[in-house]
Amino acid sequence: MTTDPSPQLWLYDTTLRDGTQREGLSLSIEDKIRIARRLDQMGVPFIEGGWPGANPKDVEFFWQLREYPLQTAEVVAFCSTRRPHSTAKTESLLEPILNAGTRWVTVFGKSWDLHVTAGLKTTLAENLAMIRDTIEYLCYQGRQVIYDAEHWFDGYKHNPDYALQTLETAIASGAQWLVLCDTNGGTLPQEISQIVTSVISHFSLLTSQQPIPLGIHTHNDSGTAVANALAAVMAGARMVQGTINGYGERCGNANLCELIPNLQLKLGYSCIPQHQLNQLTEVSRFVSEVVNLAPDDHAPFVGSSAFAHKGGIHVSAVERNPVTYEHIRPEQVGNRRRIVISEQSGLSNVLAKARTFGIELDKDQPAARQILQRLKELESQGYQFEAAEASFALLMYEALGNRQQFFEVKGFQVHCDLVEGKETNNALATVKIAVNGENILEAAEGNGPVAALDTALRKALVNFYPQIATFELTDYKVRILNGHTGTAAKTRVLVESGTGYERWTTIGVSPNILAASYQAVVEGLEYGLLLHQVKVRVKDF
Amino acid sequence: MTTDPSPQLWLYDTTLRDGTQREGLSLSIEDKIRIARRLDQMGVPFIEGGWPGANPKDVEFFWQLREYPLQTAEVVAFCSTRRPHSTAKTESLLEPILNAGTRWVTVFGKSWDLHVTAGLKTTLAENLAMIRDTIEYLCYQGRQVIYDAEHWFDGYKHNPDYALQTLETAIASGAQWLVLCDTNGGTLPQEISQIVTSVISHFSLLTSQQPIPLGIHTHNDSGTAVANALAAVMAGARMVQGTINGYGERCGNANLCELIPNLQLKLGYSCIPQHQLNQLTEVSRFVSEVVNLAPDDHAPFVGSSAFAHKGGIHVSAVERNPVTYEHIRPEQVGNRRRIVISEQSGLSNVLAKARTFGIELDKDQPAARQILQRLKELESQGYQFEAAEASFALLMYEALGNRQQFFEVKGFQVHCDLVEGKETNNALATVKIAVNGENILEAAEGNGPVAALDTALRKALVNFYPQIATFELTDYKVRILNGHTGTAAKTRVLVESGTGYERWTTIGVSPNILAASYQAVVEGLEYGLLLHQVKVRVKDF
Repeated sequence: MTTDPSPQLWLYDTTLRDGTQREGLSLSIEDKIRIARRLDQMGVPFIEGGWPGANPKDVEFFWQLREYPLQTAEVVAFCSTRRPHSTAKTESLLEPILNAGTRWVTVFGKSWDLHVTAGLKTTLAENLAMIRDTIEYLCYQGRQVIYDAEHWFDGYKHNPDYALQTLETAIASGAQWLVLCDTNGGTLPQEISQIVTSVISHFSLLTSQQPIPLGIHTHNDSGTAVANALAAVMAGARMVQGTINGYGERCGNANLCELIPNLQLKLGYSCIPQHQLNQLTEVSRFVSEVVNLAPDDHAPFVGSSAFAHKGGIHVSAVERNPVTYEHIRPEQVGNRRRIVISEQSGLSNVLAKARTFGIELDKDQPAARQILQRLKELESQGYQFEAAEASFALLMYEALGNRQQFFEVKGFQVHCDLVEGKETNNALATVKIAVNGENILEAAEGNGPVAALDTALRKALVNFYPQIATFELTDYKVRILNGHTGTAAKTRVLVESGTGYERWTTIGVSPNILAASYQAVVEGLEYGLLLHQVKVRVKDF
Repeated sequence: MTTDPSPQLWLYDTTLRDGTQREGLSLSIEDKIRIARRLDQMGVPFIEGGWPGANPKDVEFFWQLREYPLQTAEVVAFCSTRRPHSTAKTESLLEPILNAGTRWVTVFGKSWDLHVTAGLKTTLAENLAMIRDTIEYLCYQGRQVIYDAEHWFDGYKHNPDYALQTLETAIASGAQWLVLCDTNGGTLPQEISQIVTSVISHFSLLTSQQPIPLGIHTHNDSGTAVANALAAVMAGARMVQGTINGYGERCGNANLCELIPNLQLKLGYSCIPQHQLNQLTEVSRFVSEVVNLAPDDHAPFVGSSAFAHKGGIHVSAVERNPVTYEHIRPEQVGNRRRIVISEQSGLSNVLAKARTFGIELDKDQPAARQILQRLKELESQGYQFEAAEASFALLMYEALGNRQQFFEVKGFQVHCDLVEGKETNNALATVKIAVNGENILEAAEGNGPVAALDTALRKALVNFYPQIATFELTDYKVRILNGHTGTAAKTRVLVESGTGYERWTTIGVSPNILAASYQAVVEGLEYGLLLHQVKVRVKDF
């Protein structure tokens, strides 16, 4: 269709508006500004900031951005067409839009006759007038307008003539882009492809303007939001709307972290500067951090499992010839290959794993075999290091003789007393540790024994290692091994700790759930101290 | 392409094999059997059980299923082609496959020349011989063979002639199905579509056999696994492989919970009996509970947010005319609209659930509404009854006024004392209960607090209810809710109890892991007593 070797697409991010429709996601003004700046740095050309007027936060967001504008991205204000039987000039909804002071405004309007008559309770003609009047007024005020055609695919399927009329009206009124929205997310790729093709041929017959500036906005209710956007682009759409990590109402919006590499690496379109594509993984994790949602480890391209490999033969094969097992090079999107340490691990896994921690091991080195043997021993006891890389690192340091002992664990006691009705602080933990030969005894209460143990341990250590105050316990998982023997079975606990962006996971195994938890919490603190220490050292050099 | 109003597709579930490749997912034999039975009930025709021989667990799984076979599903054993330069007849890998005693066997083989020469380090001709010999031998042994063509799309792109030869060999050797696998997950829908079309036309020229029995197996590394499978089906594939909730290595496999409704409700294919489609949401949550992974609230079709609606006007609009805001009716997949809790849909769930326990409830009965209300209350506190049906039954009996009180829980104390080196009986539990007005105080030691609690409780009860000695605690699972807040989060415990072949599961929720465990253990004993009691009564009549 195009002869250009790398045709340009325009990305349009709506994480800050449609993304915040996700249940449980809410952003402060500062959060929104941090995300906008990060997307700007990566080279996203359009960033929808919100609907000024719909809430005071969005008004303030646009004001703050005017003082410290973005480098290259256009920040876009979002609003609806004017209300029925008013005029755009006197419509109070449009005042805060103009006050936001953006060059670009996105206006959404109705495409589906049923939404006009049953939802807006007005006539089909008045809806066209609303589109026309709103866009013309915004253009007259010097704005460039993107027209989001809400429910477009459903509208087209029910009444194609009317749906096309809304687009004709928008473009005739001065809109620069027509964005076809699959608002309910029910359309499948093949249908998207056919309909986008029909729209393009309709406009090329109607006007001499070619290509028509079409965009696509999809939702994931059918699990095909990304494929739908790809189908639209391959049929001729040139603007792609989506959100980072696919956040959005119900099942989310099209995920830009999947769309960008598919479009750029596989289909040969140009979305963001090629040398900035390797920021993608970091941007994905940064945004999940700011919105305070656990990142999806299994996310395509950017998840920590996206390039994880198991099994000995497989691992040596992937290192020899990555193309046989990886659809793209992980570094292209800023991710990395991860060798998963599991039961089937051989020496080559261990060496590969050591390298990811910056440890160069030779397969003939005695430490390498010691690590492997210790690994097998622990695995037969129920340890599993696939998800507990920090514990595996500690094991390696120990075998190499350079595991630093920040503190020594002497024991703990836990007492729980539950009488019906008493719900809080029902657990008391006492821990005994030694630091530099000095014995410390510390106690704490908590809602449950693990919280009490964690608190007591931090109290005991924070005077020696103040950085512990910045470590957070971010996740805690329990799995019972050999479930068949019930509560007498072994318990495997995974604890995730972190500071800001850094995350590390440690493991504990014991028939006693509290002992397993304690072990994982202790190693989490130890690895955190090690990580911190290494950083300081690097600075010293 | 087809004139049949509802062309048949064959679903092939690989949750138990490829699904378990997901990092951090591991299943006991009992877990696998529970999942297989649930999929069988929903009407999935092929269930891949595992690779017998690759690990002892899978051998045992097939043996157990032979004793209590599935109703309608075929359970399938999975294996590779024989090794280079051996013979199928003497290949030790194939022995456990035949011993598994399944009617169907899936054999995977290499399609990509590079994997043959660099991976297997053998010749292209020998790889064809391996495919031929293995399939012929299995057919000779009376098995029906599904041939999984590993790395097929990458292989075809690099060397189409050789890739096609592997398929020709498989079909000529007696394979009933040829399944094209996008093992690395890098292919996009349009390419899948083109390649499947080419394969079909290649075979229709080559043989008179039409249509060729093609299957599709996709991975989600590009975020398009579902769209890829749909594209293959629309191009003529008739078997669809995937996993429940899309579990699988790296970014997962094609998600059957998205594929089934797309294929059945939107594209008009027949996958499972139409009246069983409404089991889908429950199956999704059941499997996530069994594998002990938090369900994805934002999952298409089956997620709790998939049909969630915000905002007043929108809500009345969606209630007036659901088609304007919902791509399918949520009840079609057993999910429900979430607004202000739609009592009607919730109530029908409760009634249906009650029926599974032999309780006939009328929707106008006050108890029905009481149950629903209590359910909502508990769900908002983190309870989830999909996999804890025994606790749900107790809740129903309570609302109906016929929950028998075998004993009364007064409280418990637990003391754990761990000093380094002392490993066993480090926990002491004291429980206080009342039976028929008599207070009982009993204490026990155990390896860990939960075992100690369980033992103390049984000691206290066994004199009153000797049948308790026959109850076993068969599984114990822990999930942390709101994991993001670490050890201070709420704990959800599932306890599975049983006598011989009977099994029942109960739930406990609390910020204190021991309190949650205790609650689930207590309800497990109570439900066991109830079950036993009912049986005795039945015998008396």
